[in-house]
Amino acid sequence: MTWRASVLTLYPEMFPGPLGQSLAGRALADATWSLDRVQIRDFATDKHRSVDDTPAGGGAGMVMRADVLARAVDHVLEQRPGVPMLAMTPRGQPLTQGLVRELADGPGVSILCGRFEGIDERLFEARPIVPVSVGDYILSGGETAAIVLLDACVRLLPGVMGAPTSGEEESFEAGLLEYPHYTRPYEWEGRRIPEVLRSGDHAKIAAWRHQRAVEDTRLRRPDLMERHGDAPGHPPSGARRENEGK
Amino acid sequence: MTWRASVLTLYPEMFPGPLGQSLAGRALADATWSLDRVQIRDFATDKHRSVDDTPAGGGAGMVMRADVLARAVDHVLEQRPGVPMLAMTPRGQPLTQGLVRELADGPGVSILCGRFEGIDERLFEARPIVPVSVGDYILSGGETAAIVLLDACVRLLPGVMGAPTSGEEESFEAGLLEYPHYTRPYEWEGRRIPEVLRSGDHAKIAAWRHQRAVEDTRLRRPDLMERHGDAPGHPPSGARRENEGK
Repeated sequence: MTWRASVLTLYPEMFPGPLGQSLAGRALADATWSLDRVQIRDFATDKHRSVDDTPAGGGAGMVMRADVLARAVDHVLEQRPGVPMLAMTPRGQPLTQGLVRELADGPGVSILCGRFEGIDERLFEARPIVPVSVGDYILSGGETAAIVLLDACVRLLPGVMGAPTSGEEESFEAGLLEYPHYTRPYEWEGRRIPEVLRSGDHAKIAAWRHQRAVEDTRLRRPDLMERHGDAPGHPPSGARRENEGK
Repeated sequence: MTWRASVLTLYPEMFPGPLGQSLAGRALADATWSLDRVQIRDFATDKHRSVDDTPAGGGAGMVMRADVLARAVDHVLEQRPGVPMLAMTPRGQPLTQGLVRELADGPGVSILCGRFEGIDERLFEARPIVPVSVGDYILSGGETAAIVLLDACVRLLPGVMGAPTSGEEESFEAGLLEYPHYTRPYEWEGRRIPEVLRSGDHAKIAAWRHQRAVEDTRLRRPDLMERHGDAPGHPPSGARRENEGK
């Protein structure tokens, strides 16, 4: 069944953009997923087709109107019953791999892309819209955030990745960063691939990778450790710490 | 002076993509910033032009080779002395608005886009590359992450935003989410714009907005509060808490 994405935007020409290439592009071409682009401006009712107005209380920029957006949102909700409606906004809940997997396992996703200073807050009180943030930084609009979210979801759809790794082996699936990767040549600029990876001992390799995932998460992202509870594994040694000063 | 972006990728046709439109697109057209696309495959040396190989120690997928990537990276570092080199990878440091501002204030940025299972770890030990992550989720490659990073940087370049808001008023600049926005119509579906925003009392409006920013950050993103220390402001009331169950 086709996984259905709808994007509500003032810039429909930004889509599919990079999602028209590579993995996501091939999956779009073979109807593993579909992409509807909804022009928000089509739901304006005045002769200037305005979608924004000055901020109540003053300040720079413009705010997207709740009434116009609600008409666009209602249109998509009606066409796509059961498909969750998200809005990309830095005020939203942080996007996680868990949410990505949940969305990929469902019928699709509809995404409202904010622009200008933001969206009239009453829209979020009046409609079932989940505000989502891709990270703690400000974009020129929700469109590039929507592209990231769709990229993350589409790669999980059945058949999109040639040889999918198991869930636990990927970053964040187990609340840890992924272990480091190595490939040929065996020696490069005097640096060798860790010997354990050439041992052929699968249990030992798995244990080493898990230990490195735990160590690297502790060193680089202690916040992930706190959030998910301490994972089993050896504490990082002083030597490793010195090697990690990137 | 033109802010110079270089992207090292296997999919140069993904760029500028959405960055060719709207704010970033106009800024690209008027040379506020420039975009070089470097095809990593051009730095392969075998007849198959291979850039990847199987993971040492076994496992699914392919790993990008350190030797090929190093040649591409060295080429760009030589052409762009003083321009920081980043690599988009989920093992990297989280992108923050502070890092975005730092990059936007500099001469530009070079971005290595990972693909497949990842990049041979020795590359990060041997070259001055900062691994950066746009969020705790997995993408099909670093390209869509690079687009997000460039979008965030370009909007801060001088002249790109028509009427820039002050730094402190935007999400994350002060370690807080942004306050909620409202605009006309005054009443919509029985919901009114908060009266304080119609008072014309600028000090009162500023105080209300700061309080809402603090309250919303406490409710939605307590992790930001912990990270940046408690900001001044009133504690959230029970009533507000009930209104925030989005």
